[in-house]
Amino acid sequence: MAEKAFLREVGPRDGLQLVKTILTTEQKLEWCRREAATGVSEIEVTSFVPPHVVPQFADAGDVARGAVAMGGFTAAALVPNLKGAQFAMEAGIAKINYVLSASEEHNLANVRRSTQESIDDFARIIALRDEIAPGKVKVGSGIATSYGCTISGPVSEKRVVEIAAKLLELGADEIAVADTVGYGNPGQVRRIMGAVVREAGDIPVASHFHDTRGLGLANVTAALEVGVRAFDASLGGLGGCPFAPGASGNIDSEDTVFLLEALGFDTGVDIEALVEVRRMVEGWLPGERFSGSIAEAGLPKTFRAPIDAAA
Amino acid sequence: MAEKAFLREVGPRDGLQLVKTILTTEQKLEWCRREAATGVSEIEVTSFVPPHVVPQFADAGDVARGAVAMGGFTAAALVPNLKGAQFAMEAGIAKINYVLSASEEHNLANVRRSTQESIDDFARIIALRDEIAPGKVKVGSGIATSYGCTISGPVSEKRVVEIAAKLLELGADEIAVADTVGYGNPGQVRRIMGAVVREAGDIPVASHFHDTRGLGLANVTAALEVGVRAFDASLGGLGGCPFAPGASGNIDSEDTVFLLEALGFDTGVDIEALVEVRRMVEGWLPGERFSGSIAEAGLPKTFRAPIDAAA
Repeated sequence: MAEKAFLREVGPRDGLQLVKTILTTEQKLEWCRREAATGVSEIEVTSFVPPHVVPQFADAGDVARGAVAMGGFTAAALVPNLKGAQFAMEAGIAKINYVLSASEEHNLANVRRSTQESIDDFARIIALRDEIAPGKVKVGSGIATSYGCTISGPVSEKRVVEIAAKLLELGADEIAVADTVGYGNPGQVRRIMGAVVREAGDIPVASHFHDTRGLGLANVTAALEVGVRAFDASLGGLGGCPFAPGASGNIDSEDTVFLLEALGFDTGVDIEALVEVRRMVEGWLPGERFSGSIAEAGLPKTFRAPIDAAA
Repeated sequence: MAEKAFLREVGPRDGLQLVKTILTTEQKLEWCRREAATGVSEIEVTSFVPPHVVPQFADAGDVARGAVAMGGFTAAALVPNLKGAQFAMEAGIAKINYVLSASEEHNLANVRRSTQESIDDFARIIALRDEIAPGKVKVGSGIATSYGCTISGPVSEKRVVEIAAKLLELGADEIAVADTVGYGNPGQVRRIMGAVVREAGDIPVASHFHDTRGLGLANVTAALEVGVRAFDASLGGLGGCPFAPGASGNIDSEDTVFLLEALGFDTGVDIEALVEVRRMVEGWLPGERFSGSIAEAGLPKTFRAPIDAAA
């Protein structure tokens, strides 16, 4: 039996954050429905940020309720604060992905408060969950800019691990270590994620890589080496980075599944079906940059061939 | 002192093999001159194939003589057979990169003979070198389709290692394990290159990766883990694959240097200067696909920052 590894689709959230076209609620739900049908078991379906900040997510409640009603996959949502977490829980979301930044400057720019204030808010979200949905809603936290920050530059690796330890102590059900700006390299990944995995014990640790500088899948390979088995990725690599116009965004879901399967992990995902969903979403978002090699080159003839089957 | 790792530029050979524009001899030499000035220590400057097969290389002798006369870097040339090796040595080339395929079908399609016949020809090239340029010309061999073949599918890993062993026994000064069609994954790289490195002992082993399915730099990371320190790459990822139109080609030189330097290796290469050379070559080849993330996104603010410099 192959070991399992998990793709977590973040396209409907991270992928849609910067695109010019606002998709309809029906399109977003169709994306979720069709991608879940390919075998993807977790999708970050929306973000509970104030609509004036990101108009794309004005329908967060409707998308969340629709996705939860579908069943068959874990519908997660990003929340930046306690209010967002409350809305998400009211919509029935089963998994809340909170986010704070290891870089003080980035945290300030992103959510207008210090990293410590964001940590304190996380404690309040855990308390709210324990009050209104005990044992029903999982609350994880992402640590953004874990590999460096476009504003402040280097971020201390020790600090990232300390923040993870604090979040775990407060009751985090999962930690996601995020390379928000595509600065990470496999050496950093082995050190930082290795330390967070040791700190987390039985609590799952996920990665969130961007491919801005081409190292996304090399970083996935390094994360696998230190025991990470859950990987955020976006269909067609949708995502982009406001600080690097034209540059690629999140790692590509199709290519990530290809890498995991090629390395012998069982993702449960049908890659060809995933490419079809990508083509559908591509059709909805004219003018956006889609990346990804498998959609272009196709699977190798050797895919899933047993090792040394050939003479 | 950082450990050294080497980029071997193959753009003027592998990169130009399929492009529509035929560059002038002066342009090819300008490319070599400017890229060597960035710190790249080895360039595959041309291919001694018959001009009717690849018209781009009709000036192989002139390019070779011009590059050798420049000095300051190792001018290597690809040769498919004994005749090509003789021409290369007559032109003063210091390093011959011979190539054969682990896949019988690919070898037949590429050089119209069996893999064993190609191995026999390698013995004749070594004998010719020992006769006319003893101790002066290095003769390495690439093993194409080491990770699978678009014609025949899977290639036995054992066979790749056995071919490497034969070439080493015949006196190869270097073995390059080539993922000609972009089928390789980091698991295969660790197994195959690990075994070839053990077989080779003190003889250097280089990698030749294509990025056709997005795993090029993940494969470099895996090759580093098993002791490989020399990496073929092409400026701007130029190269392509006749079997995957529109798909990316060789791994990108700028991104490869970035990965190696980010991991703490000393490549001796100035990445920003390399990006400038890429822009020059891009200007010469309208309509060709250039890839590479560093040329688009730039170096991270954290590049070369000491680990944990930040508070």
